[in-house]
Amino acid sequence: MTDVKAPVATERRRERRDRQRDAAALPSMEQITHHVPRYNLLDEAAIQRIHDASMRILSELGIDFYDAEVRSILAAHGVRIEGDTAFFTEAQILEHISKAPAEFTQLARNPANNVIIGGKRSVFAPVYGPPFVLDLDKGRREAKLEDFHNFVKMTYMCPYLHHSGGTVVEPTDEPVSTRHLDMLFAHIKYSDKAFMGSVTAGENAEDSVRMAEIVFGERMRGPDPVLLSLINVSSPRRYDERMLDSIKVYAKANQALLITPFLMSGAMSPVSVAGTLALQNAEALAGIALCQMITPGLPIVYGSFMTNIDLQSGAPVFGSPESQLALFAGAQMAARYKLPFRSGGTFCSTKIEDAQAGYESIQVMLPAVMAQVNFILHAAGWLENGLVAGYEKFVIDCELLGMYHVWSKGIDLSDEAFAFDAMQEVPAGGHFLGTGHTMRHFRTAFYRTELFDYNSAEQWVIDGALDTRQRANKKWKKLLADYQPPALDAAVEAELLEFIKQRKRQHGYRDHSAR
Amino acid sequence: MTDVKAPVATERRRERRDRQRDAAALPSMEQITHHVPRYNLLDEAAIQRIHDASMRILSELGIDFYDAEVRSILAAHGVRIEGDTAFFTEAQILEHISKAPAEFTQLARNPANNVIIGGKRSVFAPVYGPPFVLDLDKGRREAKLEDFHNFVKMTYMCPYLHHSGGTVVEPTDEPVSTRHLDMLFAHIKYSDKAFMGSVTAGENAEDSVRMAEIVFGERMRGPDPVLLSLINVSSPRRYDERMLDSIKVYAKANQALLITPFLMSGAMSPVSVAGTLALQNAEALAGIALCQMITPGLPIVYGSFMTNIDLQSGAPVFGSPESQLALFAGAQMAARYKLPFRSGGTFCSTKIEDAQAGYESIQVMLPAVMAQVNFILHAAGWLENGLVAGYEKFVIDCELLGMYHVWSKGIDLSDEAFAFDAMQEVPAGGHFLGTGHTMRHFRTAFYRTELFDYNSAEQWVIDGALDTRQRANKKWKKLLADYQPPALDAAVEAELLEFIKQRKRQHGYRDHSAR
Repeated sequence: MTDVKAPVATERRRERRDRQRDAAALPSMEQITHHVPRYNLLDEAAIQRIHDASMRILSELGIDFYDAEVRSILAAHGVRIEGDTAFFTEAQILEHISKAPAEFTQLARNPANNVIIGGKRSVFAPVYGPPFVLDLDKGRREAKLEDFHNFVKMTYMCPYLHHSGGTVVEPTDEPVSTRHLDMLFAHIKYSDKAFMGSVTAGENAEDSVRMAEIVFGERMRGPDPVLLSLINVSSPRRYDERMLDSIKVYAKANQALLITPFLMSGAMSPVSVAGTLALQNAEALAGIALCQMITPGLPIVYGSFMTNIDLQSGAPVFGSPESQLALFAGAQMAARYKLPFRSGGTFCSTKIEDAQAGYESIQVMLPAVMAQVNFILHAAGWLENGLVAGYEKFVIDCELLGMYHVWSKGIDLSDEAFAFDAMQEVPAGGHFLGTGHTMRHFRTAFYRTELFDYNSAEQWVIDGALDTRQRANKKWKKLLADYQPPALDAAVEAELLEFIKQRKRQHGYRDHSAR
Repeated sequence: MTDVKAPVATERRRERRDRQRDAAALPSMEQITHHVPRYNLLDEAAIQRIHDASMRILSELGIDFYDAEVRSILAAHGVRIEGDTAFFTEAQILEHISKAPAEFTQLARNPANNVIIGGKRSVFAPVYGPPFVLDLDKGRREAKLEDFHNFVKMTYMCPYLHHSGGTVVEPTDEPVSTRHLDMLFAHIKYSDKAFMGSVTAGENAEDSVRMAEIVFGERMRGPDPVLLSLINVSSPRRYDERMLDSIKVYAKANQALLITPFLMSGAMSPVSVAGTLALQNAEALAGIALCQMITPGLPIVYGSFMTNIDLQSGAPVFGSPESQLALFAGAQMAARYKLPFRSGGTFCSTKIEDAQAGYESIQVMLPAVMAQVNFILHAAGWLENGLVAGYEKFVIDCELLGMYHVWSKGIDLSDEAFAFDAMQEVPAGGHFLGTGHTMRHFRTAFYRTELFDYNSAEQWVIDGALDTRQRANKKWKKLLADYQPPALDAAVEAELLEFIKQRKRQHGYRDHSAR
């Protein structure tokens, strides 16, 4: 299906690229490795019940695949097909999903930013998909390519985001058929973190693979993927043409996929956590099995986007206790199959960064961290059910992401950390500010936020009584003002721009990508 | 020390009280029982290391007790005393703390509101101690007795607060020496949930016991306490006269105590989580051992108030990752000794209910729930490092408390919850709104908030674009407008008022309590 040929990157070109990289002052980034236990909500019997319920869905109700080639691939592997529907046996599912790796590395343009997805690792990526943006100055408006650039730049600047993400916002001022080219170019030009491919059409997926080849050259010939792309299931029990086309392109190019049932309990699934979990498991495993049939060993992530609707209004609800339970259970289901897991994010329903936004965001994000979710999309910037990417929300969320880096390290139980010498120094009722132990550690002792306010009420009033949004407004502007792009090999950039120009010409548009 | 005599409650009086109670339309309250596992951060070896470090503090550095009678009690139990300092051996500590019950029942005026403290139970109580209040209409101001009444009433109205608390705000318009009488009367008059005694002086503790006797009569002669009172350690390593006086009064009256080291890492303890945990453990266990020496088997709670300071400003920081780690570890230490545990709350540093308030509050409260803390003081209303009780904050926090009631139930894994019939009904790509399963369960399927907004942006704008604070402002006013007091036996009320009048006269003040 794809005819992918990498331009041969010469040794010299790579050397030059490396030198430029060293010269740029990159914000240091360290991926999360959990040194603390995962929270396990379910016991083995509960996990087995969810597994069994999902196997019944797969064998008795089946999953629809709206693509003849896909159905013939499934049939060739013994899956029973009736019309569009594929009926899987438990043995078929378990055989194929067992071929997926428990963890894999996604390569970044800057090798220092490669990320490991799976096991005890977590990757934080920014919000994905909002057609609108919000900031305090200009309010809520349609997202443009400039906003896309801004969110890529802010993500690059944040040491607590490990991944550049994908459609950080929808650049609505670019034509639908070619905006993926502008988005991919922005991820490559304005960041050197790992990024996601386009899934809006099979040919857009092919463009993503082609552009990745231009950038990664020989590095793309190895076992590690350079793209991780988001496949949403058209739940319940349905994979549509568009997503199946993208699956085929990426699987054949050995690029990683994130298979995510999209379930809002009450709408796409029953009004129960158990039923929704069973459906999620059935849908995810069917897609993962398909991917492994196309390319055995394909790096894959078991995805979850699951919450409930408000049964009065039909609107999605974020931060609900039901969604928390589902998140923890979902992580355990993926772990049962030794698959990396995606879930979570700083989700909220609110239109602005008010108190509800804070409550909801942590109600989801902290469970995602404690479930040790391997890939956390929407970790920063999400507002209004995902319709809006908030500039202020983004930088507020990033403060929390930093905290989770500290959390994941657990408690230092060394003799030095027990600080008996400091206790000896300080009399009963005394204070520890001046102890030798404090002097040795005060620089690194506690996580320090830049944005949160700890001043007295009096000082806070003197400083203008700014709320979190107002402080955040200053911070993102400073981030963008301070932004310096990472070096990009001029020949690579030229080749990318030429490719984009050609593709836009084929679509009948002139090239906007250089702006 | 105390000479406590309960007025004999006649059978008739109790019967009349019961009838009145039935007549009042009480908001139904159900205490949390955790049907999900606790999150265990530490392994056994880590718990042992913290234990050992605390034993070293107790035996080598000791704890100061500024009360001669207490020191003689300790000495009589073999504890080595030098000056004000008591040096405990591990065997002494373990022997005495083992006498404390693993869980106990605190009686409420309304027996339906009795609470079990310990084991798999959690109790939520409102904020404790703020000298200021804040609301959107009148801003930040000194708290008055009227505010105290309002917070007691709102707590009574909230089905997710199980306990009326103690000093919900400081009624600064009442004299310091007698305001405890007004506070106790308010808890009794305006609520029928369990409440806390005064600890501001030994004689105030005695007044608390006396007033409890008037209300509880014969019920106070049984093994279950009717008061739970908060003893703060003057950390590091120091129990002051005031707190020791209160300990003696309550322990001799077999009333429950909450022994809480007050540690802000960097100020009262080292700039490390491990050192702070060791100090907390040493201080708490020393106090608990003392209580058991006075009254073996006294109901007791192992308390924790622990966070870190901002080393730049010296201000406390809430919601920090260090405080989260400490909270989980603290819960495990208490569990090691089979003691009920107190920690957590919806803590925040912010002056108003903005986004930071939401982030911070859940960063503490969700860990407190997942650690299955048995008594969560400050579960609603906390603002500005505890200096302020927020009217709006209170009702926003209560929305979250409701969510945790759902969380604690875990996932229903019954056949009905797996809803296979609904999956059979709905075709691939269909929706579940109209299924029989949804019809059977939609009323109780999901936790429904009253205050959080899930509307579309368009509808939200039509409704006035209110933020969470503005919606909360309407809600607390409605709560107070709808408030109906629980019945209180007229003879009991008269006896309480007469007691208060006498005590105020003894202090040289006229009686304000009836207002």
